[in-house]
Amino acid sequence: MEIKQTALQAKQAAIQLAAVESAQKNEALSEIARALTQRATDISSANRADRTRSEKERLSAPLLKRLRFDEDKIKEACGGLASLIKLADPVGVTLSAMELDEGLELYKVSCPIGVIGVIFESRPDALVQISSLCLKSGNAVLLKGGSEAAETNRILAEVIAAAGEKAGIPAGWLALLETRADVAEMLRLNDCIDLIVPRGSNAFVQHIMENTRIPVLGHADGICHVYVDKKADLAMAARIVVDSKCQYVAVCNAAETLLVHREIAGAFLPQIKAVLEEKGVDIRGCEETRKLIDVIPATAEDWRTEYLDLILSVKVVAGLEEAITHINHYGSGHTDVIVTADRGRGARFMDTVDAADVFLNCSSRFSDGFRYGLGAEVGISTSKIHARGPVGMEGLVIYKWRLIGNGHIAADYAGADAKPFNHRPLQKTFGG
Amino acid sequence: MEIKQTALQAKQAAIQLAAVESAQKNEALSEIARALTQRATDISSANRADRTRSEKERLSAPLLKRLRFDEDKIKEACGGLASLIKLADPVGVTLSAMELDEGLELYKVSCPIGVIGVIFESRPDALVQISSLCLKSGNAVLLKGGSEAAETNRILAEVIAAAGEKAGIPAGWLALLETRADVAEMLRLNDCIDLIVPRGSNAFVQHIMENTRIPVLGHADGICHVYVDKKADLAMAARIVVDSKCQYVAVCNAAETLLVHREIAGAFLPQIKAVLEEKGVDIRGCEETRKLIDVIPATAEDWRTEYLDLILSVKVVAGLEEAITHINHYGSGHTDVIVTADRGRGARFMDTVDAADVFLNCSSRFSDGFRYGLGAEVGISTSKIHARGPVGMEGLVIYKWRLIGNGHIAADYAGADAKPFNHRPLQKTFGG
Repeated sequence: MEIKQTALQAKQAAIQLAAVESAQKNEALSEIARALTQRATDISSANRADRTRSEKERLSAPLLKRLRFDEDKIKEACGGLASLIKLADPVGVTLSAMELDEGLELYKVSCPIGVIGVIFESRPDALVQISSLCLKSGNAVLLKGGSEAAETNRILAEVIAAAGEKAGIPAGWLALLETRADVAEMLRLNDCIDLIVPRGSNAFVQHIMENTRIPVLGHADGICHVYVDKKADLAMAARIVVDSKCQYVAVCNAAETLLVHREIAGAFLPQIKAVLEEKGVDIRGCEETRKLIDVIPATAEDWRTEYLDLILSVKVVAGLEEAITHINHYGSGHTDVIVTADRGRGARFMDTVDAADVFLNCSSRFSDGFRYGLGAEVGISTSKIHARGPVGMEGLVIYKWRLIGNGHIAADYAGADAKPFNHRPLQKTFGG
Repeated sequence: MEIKQTALQAKQAAIQLAAVESAQKNEALSEIARALTQRATDISSANRADRTRSEKERLSAPLLKRLRFDEDKIKEACGGLASLIKLADPVGVTLSAMELDEGLELYKVSCPIGVIGVIFESRPDALVQISSLCLKSGNAVLLKGGSEAAETNRILAEVIAAAGEKAGIPAGWLALLETRADVAEMLRLNDCIDLIVPRGSNAFVQHIMENTRIPVLGHADGICHVYVDKKADLAMAARIVVDSKCQYVAVCNAAETLLVHREIAGAFLPQIKAVLEEKGVDIRGCEETRKLIDVIPATAEDWRTEYLDLILSVKVVAGLEEAITHINHYGSGHTDVIVTADRGRGARFMDTVDAADVFLNCSSRFSDGFRYGLGAEVGISTSKIHARGPVGMEGLVIYKWRLIGNGHIAADYAGADAKPFNHRPLQKTFGG
């Protein structure tokens, strides 16, 4: 089938799915868990085929590990589905209710966005997670996974789509795209697809963002900073810097640049150099840093580089404002941290650093949907509209204005004898 | 100054403006009202020059009327500023608060978006309105008005920018662009400008949407439908159709297409034809319509045309589902109305019509920020993310995640001895 046809069918399904009750969506999620369990052997063997082929194609060890989707992973995915069933339905929530005039009631009610296009790399877990999040939030979904996981993705998509349909979800609610050409085609379908969620490398997400007019929810760079203020507890600062840099280096919320206030640089830099080097971190410093500790020089390019590795760039700054200016210039609007015992300086940093996540006295590594308690993570967004930072299911819903009258017309509220509007908040929900 | 420079300065101003207190922003709004009043004579005479020139250039009468910005209009604008001062500050609102663990508190707090680019046609009122909305919501703003109003816009921008700065708003918070080349340049500055708000004709907004990678808040088409169901009170339906079509034809929330259920078409169409023709409405009907009333034929093009005039296309449908399908296919996701006495059928329509505004038993003309009680209208959006339908100041804010710890690091919550997260909702606001 042509991608355009697939997308049109998804759009039809999305329209119907918007009216499906919570109970039925939850029943579909249960049915998906049952089907995954029943088909566990087939899924595992498809995944083994993918891994055998990828090993021959010399896929790196970490990617091979991410590719694994065996019976344990299936159990884990079913656990995720069970948690998702327990979450409140994000659709149908009354966000505001107001009487405009007697008998004329306005409700702002959450609803699905429509058709979500999701593009992800290696991990097949992502397919289960994102398709179930879309279903729970009433959206249809077009999925494209990494080619390494082609067999696994094919069987997963087939099992999940069929289980959903068996439980009454409209046919076409989930479809799998298989080629890069399919993706290129999908990115052009701004009349059928409402949101693109790309998950993967920096360059990959950047490419998606530059090649579509459909809104994109995601992030490319994660250039996160830790700023150690003159008022910082230096032992705390060292713990936070080490954790932000080293706790898991290959992720977007790991720190890439350390900014240090000049007044405490002499005391702090030798100290942090010792602990970081013990962890195997390679430090690159500005000129002033290099007068205080023996490290290789940082170039301007370092300030805009996401290393995703045991490398940290270090810059001494004259004060809080220089730190803020540096972050707003070189940062990616992801996560930035200040360490200071002065609440006023902390507030200033959090007010004026233009990032999705601004932290005081804790590690950058906390910016994550699970840690934020969002339940289920759609992704992390560095966009400045719709949803920002870690995004839970609320990123997959929007709202409609529902106005209920009894023959009300605008002419009665215009002209010389215009009736006035009440604009009286209502203490009830839509349909309640 | 180069537009890039202007935009960078606006970005700097926006960063500072994010930390400006409500009281100071309100003081700036008062100062703007004072300055407009003081400079009323100069503003009026600039506006007279624009009108004289435009008359010579044979601008149409309605546009000349929209161009007028005299002492009465200045008073009106000052009234708008007074109302805006009374509205709650949309910035700094705690949207959620949660303890992740003891001493580790997460707050989702509303904040400005950053730099808003606004492009509007003739009405100079829009300049005052939009720049004051941006100021109140803590955003910097780049403005481009219609060339007919060049003199008026120049003096208004100068007076408003200076009054803001006098009251402590950072310099560069407002700048006026003067040429089309400036606008083309602005649309390319996706690293400095966060949102574009275009106000104007369908073709104009479409052009903007197609020529920028910056998110756009607005609407191009407003192809609104009224569907008269078989369960409709026909007298009520007639009132609603007439109001939706005729109360003000040149606006986006006026109805363009009437859909009529087959079972009542024989009774309803002759009746509605009589009243509409009395109002001077030109009716174009589908084949089935033309068997029942004598009107000219509608072509496929009619279903996708926004007339903005005394013209209405009419189609007989077999039932509710066909009406919904027609609307989802030809509509623009703006405002669609069902007239029915059956609440279940009304709910089905509102659930599955994919539009920003879905109405039951009232006129399409109510979809408007003032009528919705939003206080001040940024615009009407047919986008499906961020903000939908009439958009008040909340369309100009987003949020940041603020996490406050006491030396918390992620390593303590990972591995064998991982501490658990609490995820306990907090009953307090940020800083409270």
